[in-house]
Amino acid sequence: MTGHNIYSNCRIATMQSDASRGRAGYGLIASGAIVTLSGEVVWVGNVEDLPAKFASKNKINLEGRLVTPALIDCHTHLVFGGNRAREFESRLAGVSYEDISKAGGGIKSTVSATRKASFDDLVSSSLTRLDDLLSEGVAIVEIKSGYGLTIEHELRMLRVARHLETLRPVIIKTTWLAAHTVPLEYSGRADKYIDDVVIAGLKIAHAEGLVDAVDGFCETIGFTHAQVSRIFDAARKLGLPIKLHAEQLSDQKGALLAAKFKGLSADHLEHLKPVDVEAFSQSDSVAVLLPGAFYTLGETQKPPIKALKQCGVDIAVATDCNPGTSPISSILTAMNMACIQFGLTPEDALIGTTRSAAKALGMSHEFGQIAPKYAANFAVWNVEHPSELSYWRGRSPLYQHIIEGRHHDI
Amino acid sequence: MTGHNIYSNCRIATMQSDASRGRAGYGLIASGAIVTLSGEVVWVGNVEDLPAKFASKNKINLEGRLVTPALIDCHTHLVFGGNRAREFESRLAGVSYEDISKAGGGIKSTVSATRKASFDDLVSSSLTRLDDLLSEGVAIVEIKSGYGLTIEHELRMLRVARHLETLRPVIIKTTWLAAHTVPLEYSGRADKYIDDVVIAGLKIAHAEGLVDAVDGFCETIGFTHAQVSRIFDAARKLGLPIKLHAEQLSDQKGALLAAKFKGLSADHLEHLKPVDVEAFSQSDSVAVLLPGAFYTLGETQKPPIKALKQCGVDIAVATDCNPGTSPISSILTAMNMACIQFGLTPEDALIGTTRSAAKALGMSHEFGQIAPKYAANFAVWNVEHPSELSYWRGRSPLYQHIIEGRHHDI
Repeated sequence: MTGHNIYSNCRIATMQSDASRGRAGYGLIASGAIVTLSGEVVWVGNVEDLPAKFASKNKINLEGRLVTPALIDCHTHLVFGGNRAREFESRLAGVSYEDISKAGGGIKSTVSATRKASFDDLVSSSLTRLDDLLSEGVAIVEIKSGYGLTIEHELRMLRVARHLETLRPVIIKTTWLAAHTVPLEYSGRADKYIDDVVIAGLKIAHAEGLVDAVDGFCETIGFTHAQVSRIFDAARKLGLPIKLHAEQLSDQKGALLAAKFKGLSADHLEHLKPVDVEAFSQSDSVAVLLPGAFYTLGETQKPPIKALKQCGVDIAVATDCNPGTSPISSILTAMNMACIQFGLTPEDALIGTTRSAAKALGMSHEFGQIAPKYAANFAVWNVEHPSELSYWRGRSPLYQHIIEGRHHDI
Repeated sequence: MTGHNIYSNCRIATMQSDASRGRAGYGLIASGAIVTLSGEVVWVGNVEDLPAKFASKNKINLEGRLVTPALIDCHTHLVFGGNRAREFESRLAGVSYEDISKAGGGIKSTVSATRKASFDDLVSSSLTRLDDLLSEGVAIVEIKSGYGLTIEHELRMLRVARHLETLRPVIIKTTWLAAHTVPLEYSGRADKYIDDVVIAGLKIAHAEGLVDAVDGFCETIGFTHAQVSRIFDAARKLGLPIKLHAEQLSDQKGALLAAKFKGLSADHLEHLKPVDVEAFSQSDSVAVLLPGAFYTLGETQKPPIKALKQCGVDIAVATDCNPGTSPISSILTAMNMACIQFGLTPEDALIGTTRSAAKALGMSHEFGQIAPKYAANFAVWNVEHPSELSYWRGRSPLYQHIIEGRHHDI
């Protein structure tokens, strides 16, 4: 790419962490311009401050629309086989989760369908969901393994995830989540599963360049502190960052475990005790909220938003896109739910899918803000004010993706 | 339109009230065909039972997709000026509803913006929301007045609503809801407002052919039984059917009032007492559930679904699309919310936006089912099973609208 691109006649929510350009948060510029070069932002500000060397050049007229950083979905299980619509119907018709599970339903059915699906099947079904996200301005998606639960099938999930990146202008960050659940064949032998598959597979996946981070499900129905710690120790030896599903269904002090390992994030956190938030905040880990799962499961215990804010914890919002507990491939729906259910403001929600989501993926120096040196990846919206993104639920108001840089070169 | 159209290679959820063709509810046909003539269904059934006279003709191949009746959104406030995204942000940032109201916010701001907007402005903003609904397979939309609150402005809202019908292949049913709230200029004089505007305007609107039904808001912050009864008496004299916003925020026995007037429907019903359901059921009125408002307001009191089902009340589901309490122009979202929040099954939800929604609009003999004599208005979906419509939240899975009949001739 040669020469500058100059975007003008737009409002801009820069989402800059340095809020000197406007109100902290949106960093709103009422009448702005953005100059990019070689996929990178080189200047952003009020159009009247545009340096003379750019002022005379041809500009791309955005006709008064709102520009934000391209959105980031920092927690998904987007690659899987089958769907669980029939199970959804059965549960609502009164069939117990236990009976569904006995009949091979629940996560077991997704593991089974994922193992059975071909590589191409998985690509095809995942692509539909990925396109849902792209249609709402998303340009970076984290995708976890965790429905394969053998080395071979876990590797394949991450290969599918990486392959998606070659098909669309998107950055995929892959997370090793073999410690999602103990598969049937290791029932009652969780520690052996960790040795044989989770850690052994991680080494292979890492050697193949398939792993950006390592995750686990710390829960009474998942894995213990000790088990997760063993996995995280293995990750540390490989130089890989960690994140953790923590405090979704009960207080297991998983967030504190993630903090101890300087995790990128702890995710869910409904049952995180306010008293533990300060200790958690020392780690600089991001709190990733997943209101789609809260909504779908009909939960009532909410994450300690007030304490998180008071302690200065960065809060991200993600879809948790998965076939069981969050059948949602809409980042704007997740933002709306974070407002309605958890009391975030629309500003918090947009920070949560830009600046903080980038941080949760270890990308905060390049993505999630419109600022010099940041990637020229923007979403252009048919809305007047960024609050509308969280407010209205209908078709996506995305007008255009502008993805100039760094989607094929990482 | 001359000659038969034959749709084949499809699964069909007929939604027939006569369930002889399959399981009660979806009325599912695994491998079906539909024959239409002059905008009307003349035959539907298993493809192998297709009469010989049609079997040899050219068929429209739907490639295995699912066909349902076109969906019906039977309760919306789709025409309005402005939006309330900034108010949404203020409320979440902690500003009280009282302070927002004092500053001219709340419904007052929508009334003000609706009055100020030009006819063309109202058409333009409403069309975006209408297109949202159409993109999800909706072909009939009820639209209420209620943000004008003068005769002139109420009439204009309904003229805008009717005008939309000339711009898109959709049927608009218009409802006179001048008794939405008492406007500022009549503050403390609700009865005079009813005489001067609600009833006087209704007569004019009816004379202009603008009214399909008459509605009111029966609530402590709305209108009393006696006031609503006066409006309903006027409607009865004009031969117009009624419906009522009832039991949304408290138990006002509004549903029983609607039943007394043999109303088409009573809508919301969160605070309807189970003990009153049997009396309500005698009227054959439809219970219209509006889970978007329940969700947006963070309510906890749910409508008495079990009692409604036990008493055989037909249950419809609608968006309640409006800028304050249900900023949602997505019928699939309303269906999903009815499942997740109220415990409807996906089957209940689809009945609620087809067969029962048609009944709530007095159209149940022509719309909401795929059956002989019914209008040939279908939605064709990229899903395998109708439960998926309520299950997944992403882009609309609509493949195609087939609207052959009766959208411009009513």
